[in-house]
Amino acid sequence: MTVEEYHAFARTACESISAERAIDVQAWECFKSLLHYVQMDATDGGEKWRELKNQFDNDLPITILYLAVSPSLYVPIVERLGEAGVNTSKSRLVLEKPIGTDLSSARAINDGVADHFDEEQIYRIDHYLGKETVQNLMVLRFANGLLEPSWSRSSIDNVQITVAEKLGVEGRASYYDGSGALRDMVQNHLLQLLCLTAMEPPASLNDKDVRTEKIKVLQSLRRLDKDSATRFTVRGQYNEGIIDGSAVRSYIEELPQTESNTETFVALKVEIDNWRWAGVPFYLRTGKRMGSQRSEIVITFKPVPHSIFEGGEAVEVNRLVLRLQPDEAVRLYIQIKEPGPGGLRIKSLPLNLSYAENFSVRYPDAYERLLMDVIRGNLSLFMRRDEVEAAWSWVDDIISAWDELDTPPALYSAGTDGPVSAAMLLDRDGKEWWIS
Amino acid sequence: MTVEEYHAFARTACESISAERAIDVQAWECFKSLLHYVQMDATDGGEKWRELKNQFDNDLPITILYLAVSPSLYVPIVERLGEAGVNTSKSRLVLEKPIGTDLSSARAINDGVADHFDEEQIYRIDHYLGKETVQNLMVLRFANGLLEPSWSRSSIDNVQITVAEKLGVEGRASYYDGSGALRDMVQNHLLQLLCLTAMEPPASLNDKDVRTEKIKVLQSLRRLDKDSATRFTVRGQYNEGIIDGSAVRSYIEELPQTESNTETFVALKVEIDNWRWAGVPFYLRTGKRMGSQRSEIVITFKPVPHSIFEGGEAVEVNRLVLRLQPDEAVRLYIQIKEPGPGGLRIKSLPLNLSYAENFSVRYPDAYERLLMDVIRGNLSLFMRRDEVEAAWSWVDDIISAWDELDTPPALYSAGTDGPVSAAMLLDRDGKEWWIS
Repeated sequence: MTVEEYHAFARTACESISAERAIDVQAWECFKSLLHYVQMDATDGGEKWRELKNQFDNDLPITILYLAVSPSLYVPIVERLGEAGVNTSKSRLVLEKPIGTDLSSARAINDGVADHFDEEQIYRIDHYLGKETVQNLMVLRFANGLLEPSWSRSSIDNVQITVAEKLGVEGRASYYDGSGALRDMVQNHLLQLLCLTAMEPPASLNDKDVRTEKIKVLQSLRRLDKDSATRFTVRGQYNEGIIDGSAVRSYIEELPQTESNTETFVALKVEIDNWRWAGVPFYLRTGKRMGSQRSEIVITFKPVPHSIFEGGEAVEVNRLVLRLQPDEAVRLYIQIKEPGPGGLRIKSLPLNLSYAENFSVRYPDAYERLLMDVIRGNLSLFMRRDEVEAAWSWVDDIISAWDELDTPPALYSAGTDGPVSAAMLLDRDGKEWWIS
Repeated sequence: MTVEEYHAFARTACESISAERAIDVQAWECFKSLLHYVQMDATDGGEKWRELKNQFDNDLPITILYLAVSPSLYVPIVERLGEAGVNTSKSRLVLEKPIGTDLSSARAINDGVADHFDEEQIYRIDHYLGKETVQNLMVLRFANGLLEPSWSRSSIDNVQITVAEKLGVEGRASYYDGSGALRDMVQNHLLQLLCLTAMEPPASLNDKDVRTEKIKVLQSLRRLDKDSATRFTVRGQYNEGIIDGSAVRSYIEELPQTESNTETFVALKVEIDNWRWAGVPFYLRTGKRMGSQRSEIVITFKPVPHSIFEGGEAVEVNRLVLRLQPDEAVRLYIQIKEPGPGGLRIKSLPLNLSYAENFSVRYPDAYERLLMDVIRGNLSLFMRRDEVEAAWSWVDDIISAWDELDTPPALYSAGTDGPVSAAMLLDRDGKEWWIS
């Protein structure tokens, strides 16, 4: 692109997200003057690096370097940035997941980046953590004295984290086939959500305190071996099926080759070996080509120990549902008295714990919030090196177990909730996946 | 009245409460045929009692005797009913509060009534217990596993029960002056609400189990003596003032005599000496000619032990507010994240725990519900003999202490929240009355 083409590209992008009102021409011109464009070979580049460096205004207090590239390019680019002297104390480096494909490759990236940037300058982004509901989870947990006594094994029966996609692998087939659902989704998004749900109260919201509590959770995850992986993990791969009334192809048909052992669905039963959570199963599942597009955390509380109501009839349990997409919401299911004369009839009421005004306010996008945090220098919603590596270390055990077992993934029809074995995983514990 | 006059009187009453639709003439005729009227001297009556008895249809499965008369007439009437043989095993006797004016007079009534009716036939009615919100309190407490771990000294800071009236003593001055706020309101309504808030989970909702738990609370109330009554009780009497923009007279001016030591306002700090509530103050207050007309129970939870939010700034506490009148509602105040980018800003959200549909359903009146319970033979919302007597026993100690102290009630201007000393009662504990 030329600079002009890049400006036009940026303007179109701005217009597409501010659909509700026309772009303020003066504001746009002001913003445009800040947009520069340098085309180069990221792994070589030569003199172009110097040209890039010259684009930076040295008077500005911070410089943000956002690498929206394949992770394999992180180290080569960072080395060039170092050689060109772009890495100053004012620099902040933003990296997208995945950081590597296993513990050793993650370490190689972290080491290579660490040669040129301090850990406090590195923002490993996971946009799930920028979601309004995830932030609200922190407030619900730590600003309501009422909830804390119930936030443990004594009152919580189980936690379910679901990230379901309707999409298949689409154009990403060759990348995806080398990765699979466990590496692509569980190692980062799902484990991060688990950490925020399970962590002990941090001493403050500063990044050091929050990330220290998160890593304690990762370190407490019960590690899986060949035997436990057989019982507590489910691998699936989508077959052909129907999504929204249209026939879709199987995963294999989307690949160039004719067979693959890669999982497009994974379900796990995870146990956290600490005082707060011992005995409380965390069920994680994620998959492509599922029946609905949604991400949610469902915290199911234990039933009342004894029902005093008519006939000792069981009452519904309390549930806290945090939906991340498509519609961000936090709902608490509570039992109230159904109004009317006579006996006590009980009704389950879903309370909206998001906003009184039912979402009349505009949501900032998760990326918007996180980039604002980069500008403010707030690291607490980004992953520290040790977190990424602890997550890989735990995931690597599962991958090794799967490699040893060498069982093919269970096929599931596209448009369903995954293979039957994912339902069996909970059924063996006398539980089921919660359906809103 | 003649029978016809009585029928007309009843019809007018029916019309006045079914304002939204005209009376169904056929239904009215059917109902009217069941209405009989016998005029008599309740303490004598002679042959009239036999006439009354003949009005009862012996084929009906139950007979309800509702004495809407002065309590001093309970025993004489019950004796006549007994002599006339109206008290059969099918009879249910409904008595309005107050049952007596102290422990010994309450025992005399209970003894006199017990000569002719079994305890299981006696329905001592307190319409506060028929309120939708009071019923909802039972469901909230015992159908939500989430709440129980917080329902004790470990999470609750204090409980406030307020029954505020705008009315003065009006036509009841001579009765009221012999009674006062403590006997008129605290001994029954306020202590009943306290019992339902504080009781241990009963084994079932049947009357025996519920009333056994309630009496345990009454028996655990810390008794007051001269010394503690000075510190933990406040007596007030209204002076002239302004209510809704109009000048109103003082209590004294409403009386025939020129002076009175009777309290029209009382505030108490009550302690419950059991494991669940030790150290949690229950503040009770009730008065006439106050600034607003409302009855509510406010449960204030403890603050989070440590705020992790910016600057360690204190966050609002959780509060459960049960409003009995004028608008029945249950609200839980909870802290959520205020939506928007950047730091975590916290907002207190009042959740409606009554009905999702914001009261679109018709509320049954408290009496309607309780009379239905009489018909169904459900005693759980009525006071058992031992409850009434336990409440009097506790209240008698306060009255004795006051008699000994012989201090005049503190004057408060009509239209205010009572005397300053009522605010001081909480101020000494570093608390204040909650204002919605």
